[in-house]
Amino acid sequence: MAAKNANKVMDKLVSLAKRRGFIFQSSEIYGGINSCYDYGPLGVEMKKNIKELWWKSMVYERDDIEGLDASILMHPKVWEASGHVAGFSDPLVDCKVCKTRFRADQVDLEKPCPVCGNRDSFTEIRQFNLMFKTFMGPVEDSANVVFLRPETAQGIYVNFHNVREAARKKLPFGIAQIGKAFRNEITPGNFIFRTREFEQMEMQYFVKPGEDEKWFEYWKEQRMKWYQRLGLKQEKLRFHQHAPDELAHYAKAAFDIEYEFPFGWNEIEGIHNRTDFDLSRHQEFSGKDLRYFDDQTKERFIPYIIETSVGCDRTLLTCLVDAYTEEEERVVLKLAPAIAPIKAAVLPLVKRDGMPEIAKQIVDDLRGDYRIFYDDAGSIGRRYRRMDEAGTPFCVTVDSQTLEDQTVTVRERDSMQQERVHIKEVKTYLDERLKA
Amino acid sequence: MAAKNANKVMDKLVSLAKRRGFIFQSSEIYGGINSCYDYGPLGVEMKKNIKELWWKSMVYERDDIEGLDASILMHPKVWEASGHVAGFSDPLVDCKVCKTRFRADQVDLEKPCPVCGNRDSFTEIRQFNLMFKTFMGPVEDSANVVFLRPETAQGIYVNFHNVREAARKKLPFGIAQIGKAFRNEITPGNFIFRTREFEQMEMQYFVKPGEDEKWFEYWKEQRMKWYQRLGLKQEKLRFHQHAPDELAHYAKAAFDIEYEFPFGWNEIEGIHNRTDFDLSRHQEFSGKDLRYFDDQTKERFIPYIIETSVGCDRTLLTCLVDAYTEEEERVVLKLAPAIAPIKAAVLPLVKRDGMPEIAKQIVDDLRGDYRIFYDDAGSIGRRYRRMDEAGTPFCVTVDSQTLEDQTVTVRERDSMQQERVHIKEVKTYLDERLKA
Repeated sequence: MAAKNANKVMDKLVSLAKRRGFIFQSSEIYGGINSCYDYGPLGVEMKKNIKELWWKSMVYERDDIEGLDASILMHPKVWEASGHVAGFSDPLVDCKVCKTRFRADQVDLEKPCPVCGNRDSFTEIRQFNLMFKTFMGPVEDSANVVFLRPETAQGIYVNFHNVREAARKKLPFGIAQIGKAFRNEITPGNFIFRTREFEQMEMQYFVKPGEDEKWFEYWKEQRMKWYQRLGLKQEKLRFHQHAPDELAHYAKAAFDIEYEFPFGWNEIEGIHNRTDFDLSRHQEFSGKDLRYFDDQTKERFIPYIIETSVGCDRTLLTCLVDAYTEEEERVVLKLAPAIAPIKAAVLPLVKRDGMPEIAKQIVDDLRGDYRIFYDDAGSIGRRYRRMDEAGTPFCVTVDSQTLEDQTVTVRERDSMQQERVHIKEVKTYLDERLKA
Repeated sequence: MAAKNANKVMDKLVSLAKRRGFIFQSSEIYGGINSCYDYGPLGVEMKKNIKELWWKSMVYERDDIEGLDASILMHPKVWEASGHVAGFSDPLVDCKVCKTRFRADQVDLEKPCPVCGNRDSFTEIRQFNLMFKTFMGPVEDSANVVFLRPETAQGIYVNFHNVREAARKKLPFGIAQIGKAFRNEITPGNFIFRTREFEQMEMQYFVKPGEDEKWFEYWKEQRMKWYQRLGLKQEKLRFHQHAPDELAHYAKAAFDIEYEFPFGWNEIEGIHNRTDFDLSRHQEFSGKDLRYFDDQTKERFIPYIIETSVGCDRTLLTCLVDAYTEEEERVVLKLAPAIAPIKAAVLPLVKRDGMPEIAKQIVDDLRGDYRIFYDDAGSIGRRYRRMDEAGTPFCVTVDSQTLEDQTVTVRERDSMQQERVHIKEVKTYLDERLKA
């Protein structure tokens, strides 16, 4: 019953996402392509806003974090050093009778095949590497294999000293990056929750060994605060600590931030103490000295790394789920103004008496740094409802009183309260309320 | 001689780009990977600013263009319909003796091999497809081949009706998109001018057949204006019209915008009249009716498309080249304030008398939406030079007079003129001058 309701909520959200232009299935006219999605006019703005808010909190508001944008295609040795060539795989089995393929850890191998019902029909377990591979240059041989990066983090590690030197940084300091990563998942699913192509927002914080636990605690706290800034409901968020047997090979400690989706509690961010594993491995595989020289203590050492890693698509889904609200007479997305795709709609009450012209003038005054929407089609109630579904925090309406006293109404999305504001004050009124 | 000077300028720029943290070679500690580059702390900001300015001019400042962000991996049929599977290739020959591979159109096949000197050693010409291919799902067979998109445009075409419906658009209207594309170029080169992984900024404008030539002229003009807004020197820009034998298979007319690089005039943007080629092909290959219904004339037809296509990395290179200036006592990047990576540096003249504290307070007041830089290391002259090389338009200096009258000096990068401004006025002073 709970599962059925969960599906219902997700179905409605997927449908709204398509109808309003947040998310379309990729290549839909060709029947789609499994687990790839395209962001429509509203989705692209929302995703941009989420990335900007993350970048702001990581880079612009701090002195100790620098930005980076490394390429997706990297030297293949990077993935040997990182452990991905040897270890980034899922265990697979096939049913010899019906040929269905399963993740060995998601099916009971002692039981009959859940698809065809035959017994003893599973093959041996084999490891399937999750990295997409391709060939660079005109010859398709093993010497030319390159991988689509399965995480952005490695681009940060291999650039540690380049960034440190160019930005003249001392420990502790971090490097932040937003970019695409690719994993050939066997079982993608739950809309944009787990996809094969996705965008990560990762920050790697380099510290002196011995100070790692202190910084780990600091970043746990900072990252939880960020989700509150995104406007998520606090009771839907929790930490999950990895037990020793859950820890990745590189991690000394790990916490997930989890959100309660209609399909259950799931990870939305990972905070990891990666120790000196990554830089040590890259030192070993590259033959370069990657140690840091502390000019106070005159010591040389490999820094420890605290990682905060979040999926941008998953964050967007979380915000949509969290904002989705059914009220008696409307569906409304109660998105935080900072991430709402359209910041304000400007609506002439009727298409005459010069109202459209005044409304368009207001649009021109407001536009520039974000999306402002002009709409004169349909009844005013209908137009409000459309903006409620788009999550637009404010609707500015030009009516007959505007013609007399130069005031407009500003309607707030969640309360539906309207206030009269002078045309000249609209920009300031909105700016104050749109700040993150 | 000219070529030698050209190399010298490019060498200096590559070196500055690395030293200041604009651009690093990808995977440098592993010896690099051919034609892949990483953007460092300054490069990532500059690229972000260029993308934002493009998005602003295309989406935020207009009513007739919607944004989109389609996935890199698409249904393979897309590339059959687009003509890329059959026709997106370069002609290659090998030397049978030394095994060197050449682009057949870049070597004189009647002459000896330019590498080993042997005669009659070339193989037959064969076509080499420039799309990177990979496999989706656990089985590496032809049924699971997918391509890394070689252009972002197709993501727009296949979403034409999704966007039109969700955004309730009528012709003419456009769809804008920024995203990565990949081409397995045989001869990448000139730093980030031609790379295998690159970011495109493409806008596809859908019009009624018959109105295409008018809109083609309109967009030619608009796009040239944009480069002036980017601050590029006008005499370095020109149009190049494609002769009939240069036209791509889909184009009725094409103009390049060219820039005069140290290595010669080269394309930085293409403006194309693609006719109804793309949507007709997708209609044919998908079996879906992709016609547009004009509710005024009651006609159904396939829209014509005017495309404006520009490489983001190439634009960044163009801006760096254009801004690079050697003066008697300094090297300075005269970047337009809107695209400069750091908007302002705040510098205490000396590290005492409370100057660092005041400077840090100014940083806190200014930061939020862009990168502000605090620097107290080294002589003030040296710090100014560093900011000149980073292209920072303004340096705010706290000196002993600040302690008396709460004013600071604001130094403008290009003129090196200094003005005293009250601390409380600094934000307004900068905001006015940083506007694009």
